[in-house]
Amino acid sequence: MALSLSNSAILFTKSPKAFNNIIINPPQTHYLTSLFPRQKSQSRSELRVLYRTDHSLTKLEEEEVQAVDRQSERRRLADVWSEIHGQDEWVGLLDPMDPLLRSELIRYGEMAQACYDAFDFDPFSKYCGSCRFIRRKFFESLEMSSTHQNYDVSRYLYATSNINLANFFKKSRWPKVWSKNANWIGYVAVSSDEASRTLGRRDITVAWRGTVTHLEWISDLMDFLRPISANRIPCPDSNVKAESGFLDLYTNKDETCRFCKYSAREQILTEVKRLMEIYSGEELSITITGHSLGAALAILSAYDIAETGLNVAADGRVVPVSVFSFSGPRVGNSRFKERLEWLGVKVLRVVNAHDVVPKSPGLVFNECAPAMLMKMAEGLPWSYSHVGVGLELDHCNSPFLKPTKDLVCTHNLEALLHLLDGYHGKGHRFVLASGRDPALVNKASDFLKEHYLVPPYWRQNENKGMVRHKDGRWIQPERPKLDDHPDDIHRHLKQIGLASDHDHA
Amino acid sequence: MALSLSNSAILFTKSPKAFNNIIINPPQTHYLTSLFPRQKSQSRSELRVLYRTDHSLTKLEEEEVQAVDRQSERRRLADVWSEIHGQDEWVGLLDPMDPLLRSELIRYGEMAQACYDAFDFDPFSKYCGSCRFIRRKFFESLEMSSTHQNYDVSRYLYATSNINLANFFKKSRWPKVWSKNANWIGYVAVSSDEASRTLGRRDITVAWRGTVTHLEWISDLMDFLRPISANRIPCPDSNVKAESGFLDLYTNKDETCRFCKYSAREQILTEVKRLMEIYSGEELSITITGHSLGAALAILSAYDIAETGLNVAADGRVVPVSVFSFSGPRVGNSRFKERLEWLGVKVLRVVNAHDVVPKSPGLVFNECAPAMLMKMAEGLPWSYSHVGVGLELDHCNSPFLKPTKDLVCTHNLEALLHLLDGYHGKGHRFVLASGRDPALVNKASDFLKEHYLVPPYWRQNENKGMVRHKDGRWIQPERPKLDDHPDDIHRHLKQIGLASDHDHA
Repeated sequence: MALSLSNSAILFTKSPKAFNNIIINPPQTHYLTSLFPRQKSQSRSELRVLYRTDHSLTKLEEEEVQAVDRQSERRRLADVWSEIHGQDEWVGLLDPMDPLLRSELIRYGEMAQACYDAFDFDPFSKYCGSCRFIRRKFFESLEMSSTHQNYDVSRYLYATSNINLANFFKKSRWPKVWSKNANWIGYVAVSSDEASRTLGRRDITVAWRGTVTHLEWISDLMDFLRPISANRIPCPDSNVKAESGFLDLYTNKDETCRFCKYSAREQILTEVKRLMEIYSGEELSITITGHSLGAALAILSAYDIAETGLNVAADGRVVPVSVFSFSGPRVGNSRFKERLEWLGVKVLRVVNAHDVVPKSPGLVFNECAPAMLMKMAEGLPWSYSHVGVGLELDHCNSPFLKPTKDLVCTHNLEALLHLLDGYHGKGHRFVLASGRDPALVNKASDFLKEHYLVPPYWRQNENKGMVRHKDGRWIQPERPKLDDHPDDIHRHLKQIGLASDHDHA
Repeated sequence: MALSLSNSAILFTKSPKAFNNIIINPPQTHYLTSLFPRQKSQSRSELRVLYRTDHSLTKLEEEEVQAVDRQSERRRLADVWSEIHGQDEWVGLLDPMDPLLRSELIRYGEMAQACYDAFDFDPFSKYCGSCRFIRRKFFESLEMSSTHQNYDVSRYLYATSNINLANFFKKSRWPKVWSKNANWIGYVAVSSDEASRTLGRRDITVAWRGTVTHLEWISDLMDFLRPISANRIPCPDSNVKAESGFLDLYTNKDETCRFCKYSAREQILTEVKRLMEIYSGEELSITITGHSLGAALAILSAYDIAETGLNVAADGRVVPVSVFSFSGPRVGNSRFKERLEWLGVKVLRVVNAHDVVPKSPGLVFNECAPAMLMKMAEGLPWSYSHVGVGLELDHCNSPFLKPTKDLVCTHNLEALLHLLDGYHGKGHRFVLASGRDPALVNKASDFLKEHYLVPPYWRQNENKGMVRHKDGRWIQPERPKLDDHPDDIHRHLKQIGLASDHDHA
C-alpha cells in the first residue's frame, strides 16, 4: 500500500497523536528538510552524488521527496514545538519519524556532543579537565552552525567527585592547575532573541558531559539505589530512589575550590532560576540534554527542577521541562519514574539497540520485567526503571557503518546522531534526511566502513595544543582566565530556599 | 686543573687539529653560541630560568661563558667550513666539542628531521607517501628558522622498492593516488646567495628520509653484501660491496610511474650535475645528510657522486663531499670503506650509544674485530664495516631524558640533536649550548622526563588533515599539483653518460 502524498501530509498537523495508528510506508518520508537544515548550501542532488554507492533515489522517490518538502515547509517549529518536546508523549512522531522532531533531536544531540568536543582531555595540558574555550565564544569556537550560535552560553557547570572516576574526571599532571578537584561538566545556554522567534519560545538548554570511552564508570558509579531525599534533594516520598553515584556526582561540592564550592545541582538550579527571572514575561521551555553519564544527570536535574518547582513562573504558568537523552543508563527505581511522570517531565531516550549502557543497571529487575515481579522487587536496591519514551535505533541498518559490536562504537554519540539522521521509522529504508556528514561518526571512533576513507579517531588538536613561541620554544599557550565564578550563586540559592546567610559564612 | 680562558681560546684558531692533545676541562665550553643560533631572542639568563632545576650557572661559569662567546664570535664559519666538513677528519673538534661543528651538525640534522616532519604518513590520506608541502615553500611550511629558509629546495627525490617495506614505503588506501609505487624520500637543496656568504661557499645539500619507528626494515633490508657494480653503479673493484637492500632502494625504478621512472640515484646525480653547472664559477660544497635508513642512503649517494666524478668541476677543481650521518647502520664491507676514504668522501657518524641500529648489520664481523679476523672474513657476505669518524653520545648523560633503552627513544633523531646540543666532550657536564628546545624530543617519542610536562608524541596535524568545507562537510583538501617531474632528468643523464637516446624511447 502506498499512501498518496496528501495523506502523508496529515503527519504535519498540530496534533500528530491523532494519527498514530496510520502506517506510512517508505519512501515518502525520505530526505525531508527541516527548519534547522544541517548544511544549507548542500542540495539534494549533491547528496546523491556523495553517497550514491549506498542509495540513490529513483525518479519517483525524488518527486515524492519534493512534495513532502513542500508540505514540511508549511509546518513551522514555532507552532509545534510543544509536541516536539513531548507534550503528547511523542505519540505518532516516532514511527514514522517526524522530520522536525528528528532535526531537533539532532540539534540537541549536537549540543551534548559539544561537551566532548570542547573538553580538555589531555593530562599534559595545564587546563586538563576544563572547557577549552571561553564561555562567551563557546559555539563560535566549535565552529558549530549558526543555529547553535544563536544560543548564548550563560553559565559553565562544574562538578567534583569523592570517588575515583579516572575516565570521567580528568586531572592535569601539572603541579599548579586551574582546579585540583573540579571538572567542567556542561553548560547552561539560552536562545537569542532571533532564535527564540524561530523556536516559538525562549529556550533554556542545559547540556551535561558524559564519557566517550572506557566505560568503567558504569561499575564505578552504579552502586545501589538511594532515596533521593538522602542527598538533600526535596522529595516527599522516601521510596523515590536513584542511583547513589549519580546523586553524589550531582550534589557533591568542595568548599575549598572556586569552581565546585557549590554543587552542580546548586549551579544549575540557581542559573535556571536566574534565567527564569530575566525572561519572566516570555513563553519559555527548559530542555535538558546529555549523553551517557550526562543523560543520567540530565534526567536527575530535570526531576530536580520540576520537584523544586523552579519551572513555575511568578504568574503561575508552568514551563515545560523535557529531556533529550542519548545512550543513557537507567537512573532510578520505578517510583522515581512514576514521580517524574507525575511532575510532568518529558523524557525521550534515544539509544543504539546494541549499546549495553542503556541496559545498565538493572539487567534483571527493570521496567521490562512483569509488573508483579517488579512490585515484589520494589524494596530491593537494584530494581531500576527507565523513564519516558524510548527511541531505539540500530546501527546495523546504516550502510555507512561496520557491523561491529564494539562498545566504543555502539555507545558513540556522533554515531547515534548519524543513525537519527537516517531513521524514518521501523522497517523503513535508511536514508540520510539532512545529509548530516557521516564523516563525523569517525571523530572519536573507527566505526565508518573503510571504503569511505575517513581517518578513524580524526578529532585531534594540532600538535596537542603546543605552539611555537616567538622565541622559538614550543609551549602550551596560556588561556584567558576562566570567566565563571560562583559569587552570585549564593543570592539565588537563598531565593529558592536552598541556602541561608549562615551557610555562606 | 683549570685552564685560563686565553688558553681555551686556542680551540678557535683555523687549524684546531694542532691542539687535539690539549685537554680542556669543563665548564669553559658551556653555553657557547654559534653563528647559527637556534633562538636568537633567547638570552642566556632566560635559559637558566627555563632549565634551572637541572643546571644553573655559577657566577664564575657565567663570566667564562661570556668570554668564550666573545672569542667564538671572532671565528667565522666562512673561514673554517672545510674543517667543519671534515677536511682534517674532525681531529680536535670532537673532544672537546667544537661549538661551530656542534651548531652545524644540528643544522644539518634538522634538515634530515625535516624529511620526517614533512612526510605524509597517514594511509587514510590521498597523498600518503608524499611530501605534505610544495617544494618551493618547503622550509617556510615547516616554520624552520631563517637559517634553513635560506636554502632553496631544488628537487624532491622519490624512490620505489621491489620488496615490501611497510614501515618505510607508505601506501594510501585511496583507490586513486598520486603514485602507486613511489614514495617521497628526500630533497636536494642549495644555499641562497645570502646564506652562501655566511657559509663561505655555495652549499648543495641532499637530505634523505629514514624511518622513525618500527625498525623491521633492518631485517627487511639487510640481506647480504653485494658488489656495488652489480647495481650498475660504477666501481673498478668488484670486491667493494654494499648491503643489497640499500643498493636496490637506491637504484630501483618503475617505468610506469611519473615519479620513479628514474631511480633515486638518477634523480640525485642529475640534480647535483645541474647545480654544479649553474654555480660552476663558485666555491662549492656537497653535504649529504640522513637519519637511520636515510644515513645509509647518504653514504651510498656520497660514494656514488665521488666515484662518478660528479664533484669535479669543469675546471678540474674537486668539490668536497661530506656526509653528516645520524643513527645510521653499517652500509658496506671494509673494501667499501677503503674505497670511500680513497675517494676523499668525509663521513661523520653521530649515534646514541644505546641505539642498536648503528650496531647493525655485522654484529660479529665488523670494524671492531681484530684485523686478521676481518681479513679472513673479507669474502663473507656479512662482514660489514662502518665508515668515517664516529661521534657517540649517551642519552643517560642528559638530565632531561628518561634512562630508557626503548628503541623508539634511543634511535630518535630529535633526541640525538638534543644530545648534540648538550655535548661538550667526553666526561664534560651536559649543558645545552644553544638552548635548543628539549620539547622537540617528544615530537615523536615519550623520552622526556615526565616532570617537564611535554606531551609525548605531540607532533600531529589538526583533525588528521580533515577540514570543514564551506558546505559543512569534513573533507580532505586537495593539494596543489606536485611540482616535480623528471622530464629534464634524461638530458642530464645523457650528459653524465648514464643514459642514451635509446633508453628514453
